[in-house]
Amino acid sequence: MDAVRLVEVGPRDGLQNEPQALPVEVRVELIARLVDAGLRTLEAGAFVSPRWVPQMQGSDEVIRQLETHPGVTYTALVPNLQGLERALAVGCREVAVFAAASEAFSQRNINCSIAESMARFEPLLAKAKEEGVAVRGYVSCVLGCPFSSEVPRADVVKVARDLYAMGCYEISLGDTVGLGTPGKTRELIRACAAEVPVAALAGHFHDTYGMAVANVMAALEEGVRTFDSSVSGLGGCPYLPGATGNVATEELVYLFDGLGMSTGVNLPALLQAGAFVDAALSRLSASRVAIALRNKAQRSLRPND
Amino acid sequence: MDAVRLVEVGPRDGLQNEPQALPVEVRVELIARLVDAGLRTLEAGAFVSPRWVPQMQGSDEVIRQLETHPGVTYTALVPNLQGLERALAVGCREVAVFAAASEAFSQRNINCSIAESMARFEPLLAKAKEEGVAVRGYVSCVLGCPFSSEVPRADVVKVARDLYAMGCYEISLGDTVGLGTPGKTRELIRACAAEVPVAALAGHFHDTYGMAVANVMAALEEGVRTFDSSVSGLGGCPYLPGATGNVATEELVYLFDGLGMSTGVNLPALLQAGAFVDAALSRLSASRVAIALRNKAQRSLRPND
Repeated sequence: MDAVRLVEVGPRDGLQNEPQALPVEVRVELIARLVDAGLRTLEAGAFVSPRWVPQMQGSDEVIRQLETHPGVTYTALVPNLQGLERALAVGCREVAVFAAASEAFSQRNINCSIAESMARFEPLLAKAKEEGVAVRGYVSCVLGCPFSSEVPRADVVKVARDLYAMGCYEISLGDTVGLGTPGKTRELIRACAAEVPVAALAGHFHDTYGMAVANVMAALEEGVRTFDSSVSGLGGCPYLPGATGNVATEELVYLFDGLGMSTGVNLPALLQAGAFVDAALSRLSASRVAIALRNKAQRSLRPND
Repeated sequence: MDAVRLVEVGPRDGLQNEPQALPVEVRVELIARLVDAGLRTLEAGAFVSPRWVPQMQGSDEVIRQLETHPGVTYTALVPNLQGLERALAVGCREVAVFAAASEAFSQRNINCSIAESMARFEPLLAKAKEEGVAVRGYVSCVLGCPFSSEVPRADVVKVARDLYAMGCYEISLGDTVGLGTPGKTRELIRACAAEVPVAALAGHFHDTYGMAVANVMAALEEGVRTFDSSVSGLGGCPYLPGATGNVATEELVYLFDGLGMSTGVNLPALLQAGAFVDAALSRLSASRVAIALRNKAQRSLRPND
């Protein structure tokens, strides 16, 4: 059976875009439940300024409290060398860096040009290599940007290639605003795969316009086998408050189960992890799979229906 | 530019699954707005018992009040010869019949076996032919059934082939509970296209599990060029109250626009038709495209953001 690898980004990319910040112990329990459900790579926090991202405050403590399990990797987003050092201090063996394919987005989101962000990653990647720590590279705005009309495909390919050349073991291509459609996704993956081995590419799709699952399929058909997702569709879209965020992990597990591809994730356990975090945030799930299966379970409890 | 044909089923399949019934004049205005947005085939009502489907009461009056436009077809669901005669009385030039691929669903939904439903359609199709009225055939439960564990593909193919042989000009394959995933959709379309010309097949996908857009893509890649959808994702799932129903027309227009395929539909006008019916039903849109674009429009009104 063909297998896919899911990278659970709910506890970082998801939670940092929820209005309410969750305490350390809730984040630790969420991650533990996700591990129990079978997820093996989990973004557990971010070493960024709590002034900009209060939801990620206490990431040190979260990662320190997580139980280690063979085969389970906890990663953290690090913006610079200082962030990497904090990640190293709590024992991270993998971190992620975040670049943009759009100059306008880079300026508005991380307050520097694309070239400046790459320059900042150089000492970080050198130090990570020295420490034997794996680095994942995010490229945002790969299929559109909230602040510029178009993102040339060549710009995406350049950032992906540069991050890979600098030592990132995997490049996660992020459709940050969910603007992509499957034809453009397919063309993008082909263009990137000409410069970076397709096995080192991951798809990171947001469902803002309801296209994420179709975009995952397009990337899958082009050979991508690693996808990022958030339990219960945590996160929303920071650029369109009220809109949907990361594709829900439940949707991808349902999809791959249906395709006969293994994810290693147990859907009922995943649904429970989702219900746990939804209750903690007093939010409704953004996962259609979660809603449908919850309603189905409730219905089966009513005997005369 | 490659073109696809959208069949707008919101005013029938959508509205009949909303808890609140809308008055005739609101349904007439909704359909008029959808025509203005560019839709050309619209299911305007159903000639069924108001005891079973109160939401469709007054379908005669709705269709009588609709303005005729060159190239626009208003269709109605008819369960039997009597229903056809009511449709003919108000001038319908196209009707639809509804069969199931699952014996359990047929019994629970239309209270007869599949064979009995087909026998009931025979005089209906003969009369329609005599009158020069086109008949569309729905097959429900093509990728799963809420009342039986599995629906054999051969059963779907048989019902599709029989409806086509009896004179239906188009067979709409309905994933009634939204259980399908793209691999199974692809295999189903291939199996049906071996017996019915692919140009006479339509895809009717529900988004209950968030798979509809991906299933549309799979059917499209197999040559299907006609898809059913509901404005604003009207309808919900009658078997899982609270869950999503028909794929939203907005999602398909966004998808095909992104693929460079023509639908003839103007998305801003469609969004206004959706906002109109959502207000009438005091409901939130089930379309992610509608939500995202509404939030984007609101955001652009705030100058200092």
